[in-house]
Amino acid sequence: MAKNDELQELLQTKNITKRATVQAIEELLYSPIPVLDHGFIRVVDYMGDDSSIVQAARVSYGRGTKKSLQDKGLINYLMRHRHTTPFEMCDIKFHIKLPIFIARQWIRHRTASVNEYSARYSILSNEFYVPEKANLSPQSTINKQGRSTDTLPSEVADRVLSIIKNDSINCYNHYVEMMNEDESGNVIDENNIGITRELARINLTLNTYTEWYWKINLHNLLHFLALRADPHAQYEIRVYAQAMLDVVKAWVPYAYEAFEEHKMYATSISRKGMEVIRQMIDGKKIDQESSGMSKREWDELMVNLKP
Amino acid sequence: MAKNDELQELLQTKNITKRATVQAIEELLYSPIPVLDHGFIRVVDYMGDDSSIVQAARVSYGRGTKKSLQDKGLINYLMRHRHTTPFEMCDIKFHIKLPIFIARQWIRHRTASVNEYSARYSILSNEFYVPEKANLSPQSTINKQGRSTDTLPSEVADRVLSIIKNDSINCYNHYVEMMNEDESGNVIDENNIGITRELARINLTLNTYTEWYWKINLHNLLHFLALRADPHAQYEIRVYAQAMLDVVKAWVPYAYEAFEEHKMYATSISRKGMEVIRQMIDGKKIDQESSGMSKREWDELMVNLKP
Amino acid sequence: MAKNDELQELLQTKNITKRATVQAIEELLYSPIPVLDHGFIRVVDYMGDDSSIVQAARVSYGRGTKKSLQDKGLINYLMRHRHTTPFEMCDIKFHIKLPIFIARQWIRHRTASVNEYSARYSILSNEFYVPEKANLSPQSTINKQGRSTDTLPSEVADRVLSIIKNDSINCYNHYVEMMNEDESGNVIDENNIGITRELARINLTLNTYTEWYWKINLHNLLHFLALRADPHAQYEIRVYAQAMLDVVKAWVPYAYEAFEEHKMYATSISRKGMEVIRQMIDGKKIDQESSGMSKREWDELMVNLKP
Amino acid sequence: MAKNDELQELLQTKNITKRATVQAIEELLYSPIPVLDHGFIRVVDYMGDDSSIVQAARVSYGRGTKKSLQDKGLINYLMRHRHTTPFEMCDIKFHIKLPIFIARQWIRHRTASVNEYSARYSILSNEFYVPEKANLSPQSTINKQGRSTDTLPSEVADRVLSIIKNDSINCYNHYVEMMNEDESGNVIDENNIGITRELARINLTLNTYTEWYWKINLHNLLHFLALRADPHAQYEIRVYAQAMLDVVKAWVPYAYEAFEEHKMYATSISRKGMEVIRQMIDGKKIDQESSGMSKREWDELMVNLKP
Repeated sequence: MAKNDELQELLQTKNITKRATVQAIEELLYSPIPVLDHGFIRVVDYMGDDSSIVQAARVSYGRGTKKSLQDKGLINYLMRHRHTTPFEMCDIKFHIKLPIFIARQWIRHRTASVNEYSARYSILSNEFYVPEKANLSPQSTINKQGRSTDTLPSEVADRVLSIIKNDSINCYNHYVEMMNEDESGNVIDENNIGITRELARINLTLNTYTEWYWKINLHNLLHFLALRADPHAQYEIRVYAQAMLDVVKAWVPYAYEAFEEHKMYATSISRKGMEVIRQMIDGKKIDQESSGMSKREWDELMVNLKP
Repeated sequence: MAKNDELQELLQTKNITKRATVQAIEELLYSPIPVLDHGFIRVVDYMGDDSSIVQAARVSYGRGTKKSLQDKGLINYLMRHRHTTPFEMCDIKFHIKLPIFIARQWIRHRTASVNEYSARYSILSNEFYVPEKANLSPQSTINKQGRSTDTLPSEVADRVLSIIKNDSINCYNHYVEMMNEDESGNVIDENNIGITRELARINLTLNTYTEWYWKINLHNLLHFLALRADPHAQYEIRVYAQAMLDVVKAWVPYAYEAFEEHKMYATSISRKGMEVIRQMIDGKKIDQESSGMSKREWDELMVNLKP
Repeated sequence: MAKNDELQELLQTKNITKRATVQAIEELLYSPIPVLDHGFIRVVDYMGDDSSIVQAARVSYGRGTKKSLQDKGLINYLMRHRHTTPFEMCDIKFHIKLPIFIARQWIRHRTASVNEYSARYSILSNEFYVPEKANLSPQSTINKQGRSTDTLPSEVADRVLSIIKNDSINCYNHYVEMMNEDESGNVIDENNIGITRELARINLTLNTYTEWYWKINLHNLLHFLALRADPHAQYEIRVYAQAMLDVVKAWVPYAYEAFEEHKMYATSISRKGMEVIRQMIDGKKIDQESSGMSKREWDELMVNLKP
Repeated sequence: MAKNDELQELLQTKNITKRATVQAIEELLYSPIPVLDHGFIRVVDYMGDDSSIVQAARVSYGRGTKKSLQDKGLINYLMRHRHTTPFEMCDIKFHIKLPIFIARQWIRHRTASVNEYSARYSILSNEFYVPEKANLSPQSTINKQGRSTDTLPSEVADRVLSIIKNDSINCYNHYVEMMNEDESGNVIDENNIGITRELARINLTLNTYTEWYWKINLHNLLHFLALRADPHAQYEIRVYAQAMLDVVKAWVPYAYEAFEEHKMYATSISRKGMEVIRQMIDGKKIDQESSGMSKREWDELMVNLKP
């Protein structure tokens, strides 16, 4: 395929523009950043920089304040006080390759523009996600929606991996057989007839890889990342979110720093929780019962206060 | 399960309300309407009726005009001239059971509210879509994204159906084995340990059924239906759209009639296309070349003029 | 006008429905709740109740758990952990009368459906907002975006009120004169000719009242209310938000309670802020400088810790 | 003010970028394009070009097909068949100055990101829209929402213009007096006290100018333009839309051409309308009565067939 030639050519591009341009993200542009066993994210385009946030907040003629410290302070203020609209003024576009079960979680965020590779129109590649042994965890008994920290006995893990591999291959082979077309679209048996692509694909497993273009503004991206880079998110989407955090850091360093401080690693404390904190600071004795909080809320608060 | 008891109880509900109420949709409320082999749609709630559209368009105190003919005329006018906001004032909520590959197409419509059954938290049922023989079609050679009108030779069809059934069962059995839990969540082998649900599910095939609550306003629903009840949509989503069209017809008959006339079965004619039509009506000779249209555009127009 | 007759008739409605119905909100239905000098909000329709949130979160057949305490606990959990989609499953529709300058702030929330009274098509009423003397405050010198707590000297206040009244009346009279139509649409001078309504209105002042239908789901409504019932919001929009809070409380009491506790009166503490709190609880000495926080951030935190 | 210096500096920018860059829009960048008496639009940033649409539609590695004709054909196809998502992959950001009554229409489009100049925080300039004499039209008697084609007698027009000018100036002067601050924020009378900005502004007329940053993707922009450049739109917003059409033409010429042909100047013909057209082409006699169409629908169709 000409994939590499095209990529090389793009990497050589030198256009002259009057637009806000960020050197650090220019260097990332177009190159795939590997995620999981066959996935990647790559930045395909972007619009705006830290100063675009300032510019929009000020509705001014210029481009930010031209005084770094002032820009940084304003961005921090905007993030802290949830003035979110100026962060909508920056956009980024990714080309992403990811397993279908992750795509299903991802697409629930409705604030992005998406173009997915069409399995009605085209043939999916013979690529599927197989977890690393270290990531095979039993169901958590505490958090009904996650993994325990235990790992699986090695022989169980081997059995699991062999099931996933075999079933994926088997289903893909049957997919190709039912279409009577191979991965490249060549007819397999001239004397035979295959079914339509849109139907054959229903036989594929959820770990099959798909691809899409995904464009989102900075505000919505940060919201996505806060949820998906969180320890409660499924491991397989978290690694994508983490790769994106590095991209954001390169692109809009002030916004990123404010985001880490006031959103990503901030803690929301309930009305009763604030009352508990005030009493504790005053050195007063307070326990779950007297706090009016439920056992679960109290425990969550204590984890935050003494991590 | 108590599924049926709960349903029976709901069907007996008799609440008194001052809200706009539609008898025909009340009769549909809660009962599943079957779609495909294991799927269904069922109306769970609704808000507004035809007169709510009129009321919003008039920003008035009352409830429509109380004169049926006037309401009908206004709704028709609003639809014809794309005054879409009054149609946003009615809402409907469905509980839907559908195969995952259809859920993936469906969710691309970002204007609805969705709560999907969580396969991170719960265990999916052993149910998967197997097409009827009559719906197994070869890939269309004209429309790269669809099915040809030919059907498959019977022995090929048999082979396809047997592949889909076997692979689905096989993958489901391995899903259960990997979790070490059966469909009801009972541990299978006390001496063994299973992997987390969120990971085991990646082994399932795309025809596995899922469920969700889906709430949407009337304007966005009609847009969805215009695209998904269209002959170009994949058969398996089209049957859901068709079942919904009947629901809409029962719920807001005036809006539905206007929708059929001015949107669903309306035709968009391009600037050049209108010029061609004007000339044809005038009895002038015109062909593709002199029209300035491409071969494809011309053919599409002719299909519309002489279906 | 027949306004009152229509309203009276609506208030007598007794429809039978299988839908979730809430007695406390039925009692509010249709009746205007006064806000400011000529404004109001009135609930025109609603969909769902507390149990609809539970139902959607469970993707279940029934209607909530039928065990009040369990429903309440789940709703509280969902709110606390920002599982926001189930709250999208309830909708409410208001008819609202409000001054144009407030409408301009309000409409910035893009997640609602709106139908506004058209001043291109119809004639606006001769009604405008004049503040009460007690609400005439000087610009705050601390918060550049708000009012100080001082009130104005009485003679200055009198002058302000007389300006606002006179200019509003004067502009309205000219509006009517330019259209050559009075408030009811009657031609004023048969021998004269007026300009189009859409242009005449540009002479009206921003305190002129307008009306709209506004429909929003519960999740987005709560977000709107958290911002607009906040002390930092402009007084004139805050009173609308406060009236709506009472409506929400009547409609979905569990969701409302969770909202107050975990969103409305919750506090977001930054990463550094949490570190400060932990040290203070441990009885360690910490001040702004050693905290790494800016003076402003530190002051904001202290206000939260010792209000 | 340093407005001009900042602008000059921006116009000199020469950044090197790997991103898709369009020469024709680079030449428009930053410079205000005048609209109405004091308004303007100016392009502040953009992302993508025609080839970005192709790239997203193909979910490919490269940048379009590199064969112009093929790109053009595909874009035309996508527009014709309402494959709208690839058009979401291009974004543009404008800085716009416009009268408040137009801003109120504009903001009803909820699919853009907006940052408006804050009259709570800052002081509005002494600038307001006064129509040109030629645009002072009487209310249309046919279209209840628009202007007739008649113009006003000159003495009536003079009276109208003098009202608008005087009331605007008078209200602005009182605005400044009530704040006790002039346009630049200087205290007017040291011995006096003014009211807060957020309240004083309610005395301004709807033709006062405001400013905002407005960012939107190409798909949503084209939808906005199709509605607002339409002859039924109010003149004062139409001129903004027309200025934007020229920008789009420079930016994405293929998309623009397809838009003109298949959306802007296309005609939606109803089901019955298509039947009428087919019969007319066949030379059959058909009139309103036998068509099943209402008088109004028939007339609208005839206007389209014989313009």
